[in-house]
Order: sequence, then structure tokens, then C-alpha cells
Amino acid sequence: MNPRFIVVSTGSELTAGRSQDTNSSWIANELFGLGYSVEKFVVLPDDPVLIRRELSEISVVSSTENPVLILMTGGLGPTEDDYTLEVVCELTGSTPVLNERAHDRLQALYRLRGRSFQEALATALRQVSIPSKSTVMNNSTGIAPGFWSELRPGAYLACMPGVPKEMTAMFHEELVPLIRTHFQSAKLYSDYLFIWGLSESLFQQEFIEKLDFFKAGKAIWGVAAKRGFIRVTYQSEDQELLSKLIALTKEKYGDLCTGDLFEELPALLIQKKLTVGTAESCTGGLAAKLFTDRAGSSEYFLGSIVSYANSIKENLLHVKKETLEAHGAVSEETAREMADNAASILNTDLSISITGIAGPGGATPTKRVGTVFIGTHIKGVGTEVKEYFFPFKRELFRDVVAATSLFALYNRLRKL
Amino acid sequence: MNPRFIVVSTGSELTAGRSQDTNSSWIANELFGLGYSVEKFVVLPDDPVLIRRELSEISVVSSTENPVLILMTGGLGPTEDDYTLEVVCELTGSTPVLNERAHDRLQALYRLRGRSFQEALATALRQVSIPSKSTVMNNSTGIAPGFWSELRPGAYLACMPGVPKEMTAMFHEELVPLIRTHFQSAKLYSDYLFIWGLSESLFQQEFIEKLDFFKAGKAIWGVAAKRGFIRVTYQSEDQELLSKLIALTKEKYGDLCTGDLFEELPALLIQKKLTVGTAESCTGGLAAKLFTDRAGSSEYFLGSIVSYANSIKENLLHVKKETLEAHGAVSEETAREMADNAASILNTDLSISITGIAGPGGATPTKRVGTVFIGTHIKGVGTEVKEYFFPFKRELFRDVVAATSLFALYNRLRKL
Repeated sequence: MNPRFIVVSTGSELTAGRSQDTNSSWIANELFGLGYSVEKFVVLPDDPVLIRRELSEISVVSSTENPVLILMTGGLGPTEDDYTLEVVCELTGSTPVLNERAHDRLQALYRLRGRSFQEALATALRQVSIPSKSTVMNNSTGIAPGFWSELRPGAYLACMPGVPKEMTAMFHEELVPLIRTHFQSAKLYSDYLFIWGLSESLFQQEFIEKLDFFKAGKAIWGVAAKRGFIRVTYQSEDQELLSKLIALTKEKYGDLCTGDLFEELPALLIQKKLTVGTAESCTGGLAAKLFTDRAGSSEYFLGSIVSYANSIKENLLHVKKETLEAHGAVSEETAREMADNAASILNTDLSISITGIAGPGGATPTKRVGTVFIGTHIKGVGTEVKEYFFPFKRELFRDVVAATSLFALYNRLRKL
Repeated sequence: MNPRFIVVSTGSELTAGRSQDTNSSWIANELFGLGYSVEKFVVLPDDPVLIRRELSEISVVSSTENPVLILMTGGLGPTEDDYTLEVVCELTGSTPVLNERAHDRLQALYRLRGRSFQEALATALRQVSIPSKSTVMNNSTGIAPGFWSELRPGAYLACMPGVPKEMTAMFHEELVPLIRTHFQSAKLYSDYLFIWGLSESLFQQEFIEKLDFFKAGKAIWGVAAKRGFIRVTYQSEDQELLSKLIALTKEKYGDLCTGDLFEELPALLIQKKLTVGTAESCTGGLAAKLFTDRAGSSEYFLGSIVSYANSIKENLLHVKKETLEAHGAVSEETAREMADNAASILNTDLSISITGIAGPGGATPTKRVGTVFIGTHIKGVGTEVKEYFFPFKRELFRDVVAATSLFALYNRLRKL
């Protein structure tokens, strides 16, 4: 049967508010993907008394009929602030034993750094030990191994490093198989899509609530609001139902649906051997930054002109003075010239132009804060400009506009 | 005496991993500023059974000699997923009573939207009610008021909305005075600075651990690792000691210390009436984005040329072909021409140039991934180029480089 899942993060930097605990939501999200839901997150400082008390209180109400799995991160390092090993040994009546594989890795690392392994023995060895009554979870990306213990019948504890890279690797490589062995979970199929320009609540109201599959428990849905789009996930044991849900969504939302745009757009550009550049005003380079977030983007992204001031729009982007005077910098006409000229100046096949009012200042009698014109140019096809209105705060506005500009280009390209 | 502080966040979107709980760390950070530390964060789904159980378990071990203050966010809205009012009424033997002030605000809002207040009565009224045995905490930015209750002697519960903007305003305006009334806390003075290019651990090792003030409990320190710098905070009841700590830090780290650069640099540019632009390669527009994050940045920021491809460096930025061929795109010489030419092409007083290897690809026999040249140009003074090495992953590398480029410019400017 499914256990209750409780995620515990330890770290004084977390409870002091100096760092943000991102491990817990990552774990909850992955567990959701496996068909499990989490009952509670707990975040504790590096304090052995508090950690011991918490683990005892959680495990004491569990039994083989009502099992609990505690997923704990942090506290496995070599410093005096790391108490996980000590606490778990105490709770399980174990002693620390050296894990050979982790020990070998550590030794190899010292050799690599040209330092004598003897030097650091005392503190370093702690982090390659696990409680005698536990199953090791190997760390493929760092030093400290994790471990899986049983605190009492039905109360399982999986300890993993707090470093996200190490934790996420260990989760997939070591923890998931252990969970599968201990608690059978039905095979779930999963698929997702992005829907652009739609809110979570509207999607729920006008789509999800009208379908019976979810009420009947035949499928699970999840939605995450991103900047400019929502990411919708469906899960079901029935693969056909899953395909049907994706099809129904596409039927309803049509062109607004994409896969992961930040993968699909680059793939399309590479496949069609097209180059792209941007001309940006209110986003100040953010669309260019989005393009170049990806390693290897030099294959298709050539450059950008950030024309924050009108002087740059005129002198560098060659937007006509008359256009700026007659229609203003935030206008369809300016966006059109920006896109046209960017493609010719940067010598690219495609271009995106963005001009809008990010606020809080800058509104005019006819144009509200949140107004933006996005132009997309395709060589040999032409330029299209669309007006949008995103009444959000400055930061959110800029994120939404930049992402939406990539979507606008993609949506034209995929239809060619 | 000081209570134990426990922060509880409720929301099924949190425990499902769809949203990140940012309220808890914000609250912990603010409490730190007031001289308090938090013992635990708990995150729960919108489940009245789990919420009630958690609150009972926390409060049962408290007494007037060992008080606890639970700061809870979320669950105050009008929907059927919002259980906070119901649970607290049950735990305190209260009934929901309408809060006049919140009720009036709600009514005014309906009038403003041109909708009849009668229409929405049933669901809307729930969120303007508080438990009869509680003290209201007014909501100056949204609808739902918060409240302060006593679950049993010494066990206090403050409920606030989950919307960060409403919660943070309520925290400062309503909660802090209530905390001060119930638990006297010594007046703490606080100050902070940024130190550039330094790690948390090195700072702790070579500075903090050599000072006695902290061990003796005369001052508290905190440090947050940001991208490119650390933010160091000191607190003490002794204002002179605080000044001394800041002075000692500046003495040790000299030029690496700034205040909040993202405030100080714009202020300096405005004060000196200087304009700035950027020429960026590996950061792909991120430095321009950083400049324009701030509302009103058009006063000093004119624009940018993102020359991701060498063709743009040559044709638009006029970097000499010979320079690119002889020294490569990632070189001191290229960075120098980029900075010089950006200032003349964009017609700005100042410019920043950035050219480096963000990785994972792009290394050359002589230049490793993580190498970057940052140029800063000051009209009438000249251009300076510095080489840096930031062996970080692509995203972190780009964030650090962009922030550091602003610091490099600031550091020259403030000495003029």
C-alpha cells in the first residue's frame, strides 16, 4: 500500500531565510509524477535535538498497515553542522560504518587534487559513512552517500544530500527503485503541453471541470503557471485516455498549445537552418537572453539591438523619425520597422521586435502600461505585428513579453 | 521572554510541488532582522484535518513559560479550499464574525467593479470574517483580514494571507507591533554590505571566525550568497559595535565592498548625468536586462548591441577583423574594441563590454570555459579591460558575469 510521504529538509541557512528550500518542491513534483502525493514538508535547522524529535514524532504514529516514508535532505556533509548520520544511528541503534565505494571515490578525489588522503582523514571520513542498519544509496555526482533506514516497522527514512545536483541524481538512480520495491505503484503514463496566454484558474474552470475522467479518478491533472504560459500535465494508467486528453486539449486551445517551446523552437531553427536576431525596447535584452540561455545557441542566434532610447531606434535600427513622431515608439508601425530593419542589419533570416510600456511610468493618453507590440519577421514571407496587453508588474511583464515573443515567432514558423 | 517561532504555510499547490513556498523564508529573514530565529517551517496541503492536527501538536507542548508563536500563511480566501477560519474557530471555540472594516472594503470593491454586492454574498463574506476570539490584523493591500489568536496559554497563532504582497504588508503593519507587545525584544541595530567575488565560506573562515564579538554574543552576523557577491548583515544592540564591524569589513575587503550596487550605480549615474550602453557576447543581453530591471532606467541606459556572432562583432560593432583573427573573440583586445566602439556607436558616456566562454562548449587550447573579459569605458578617461575566471555552470556563469560587469563599472566611477 502507498505510504504517507513527508519531506524533511535540514539546514540552518534555510530556517534563517538565507537560502530557499527548493529540494522539497522538486521532490514533491517528482513524486507526483510517480503517482504519489506528499502530506507535509518540514524544514529544520541543523540541530540534532530538533531533528531527532521530529523524526520520532513522525514515525511513532506509523505501522506496517499505515506506513510513512520520510525523505530527508541535508546534513550529510563533513562539517560539525552535519548531524544526520549521528541522529539516524541513534534512532536505529546503529553505528557508523565506512561505505567502501564512497570511500574509494573520496580517496580518488584527493589523489586527483594532488593532496595526501591522510591529511583530511578525521573530518572527511564522516561523510562516507552510513548507519550499520541501513541500505546505501550511492552518490554518483558527489561524495556523501545517502541511505535508507527503517526507524520502526512501517516507518522508513531515506536520507539524501542537500546539494540539489547530488540529490536529484540520487533520487532517480537510487531512491525510486527502492520506493518501487517497497511500495508497488501502478504504472502511470504521463504527458504534458504548454498553453500560451491562459491562466490556471480559467483553464480549470472551462476545461478540467467539464471532464468526467478526473472526477472518476481515471486520470490526474496538474498545472503550473509559468511566465506567459501554463504547463499542463496529465497522468493515467490508461495510455489511450492520456492521448485523448492531449487531443481534447489541443482541440480546445488549438494554436495556443505547444510542447516545450524552449526545446522546440531551437530544434526547428536548427532543422530549417535559420538564423534569428532581436530588436528590443522594453524587454531590454531579455528576449536575446532567453535565446542564449541554451548552450549551442550560436548555431542560430546571431545578435540583438537593444534600442531602449529612441536615439538608438533611429540611429542604429533606422526606424524613421516620421514613424516615431507620427505613431510613437510604442506602436505597430515602429514594431514593424524594428523587425524589418533588425533582420537586414543583423543579416538574419528571422527577427523579433518588441516595443511596449513596462511601467510603472510611461503610459500615454492612448496607451496603458502593459501595452506591447511584438513583431516577427520571416525572410521571404514578411513581417507580422501583434498588439498584446499584459497588465502585470514590471518584472512579470518583461518575462511574459519575452517568452511570448518567442512563441509568436514559433507559431508562424511551424505553419510554414 | 522570546517565544519559539514556527512558520506554517498552507496550500495544496505547495505540497504538490507546483508552487514554491517563498513566504516562509521571507518571514524567517524578517524575524532574523528583529532578533528572532525560527525553529521550523511546516508546509501543509489545504486539508483541515492535517492543519488542525499540526496546530494542536505544536501548541500542546507550550505554556506561558515556554511560549510558541505560529505564523501561518494561506487558506484565508473565499473558496472551498480555504479552511483556516474554520479550523481556528474550532480550536479556539469561536464563531466566525464579520470584520466591519474588511467588509466595507469588499463592498467598495464590488461597487468599483460595477457589480451588485448581493450577488456574491455567500462565498465572498467568508473571507472578511475572523474568529470571535481573535484580534484582527488588517489587510491594506487585499481583501481577507488576518487575525491573531491564542490557542491555549502561551500558544499564539497569527494567520496571514498567502499572497506575498498582502502578507508582507500585513507583517510589517500589523504583526510586528503585536509581536512587540507580546514579547519584548531588545532594540537591534542592523546594517549590511555587499562583498564582490567572495564566497560565504571563505568570508566566514578568514573574517568572522577571527572576531570575538560573535562568539561573545555581542553581535549576530548573516550572509547570503548572491550571484557575483555575498550580502553580509550585522546586527547588534550596540550601535557603535555595528559601525565598527562595517568599518572592519571595509578595511579587510576594500574595493570589493559596496552598498546595494543595484541602487547605488543608478543613483550615481543620475547624479553625474551619465548615460551607459553595453556590448555583450556571452551574456546575450543579460547586462542590458539588469540595467533595465529598474523602472526609470531610460534616464541613463540607452541601449545595447548583443554581438553573439562574430559577424555582428565585425559588421555592427566594428571590431577589426585582424583583432578577431589574431586574438580571438574572447580576448582583451576584442573586449577593448567592443567597449570603445559601443560607446561611440550608441553615443553614450559609459559602456560595458563582455566577451567570454559560458560553456559547456567553446573552450580553446588556451582559454578555458569560464574565462571572460569585461571592458569598461569612461568617456574622457579611457577603457579598462579585466580578465576573470568563473568556473560555474552556464546559467550561474552568465548571472555572475553580468552583475560583475556592473560592479566593475561602478568601482571605476566612484573613484573619479
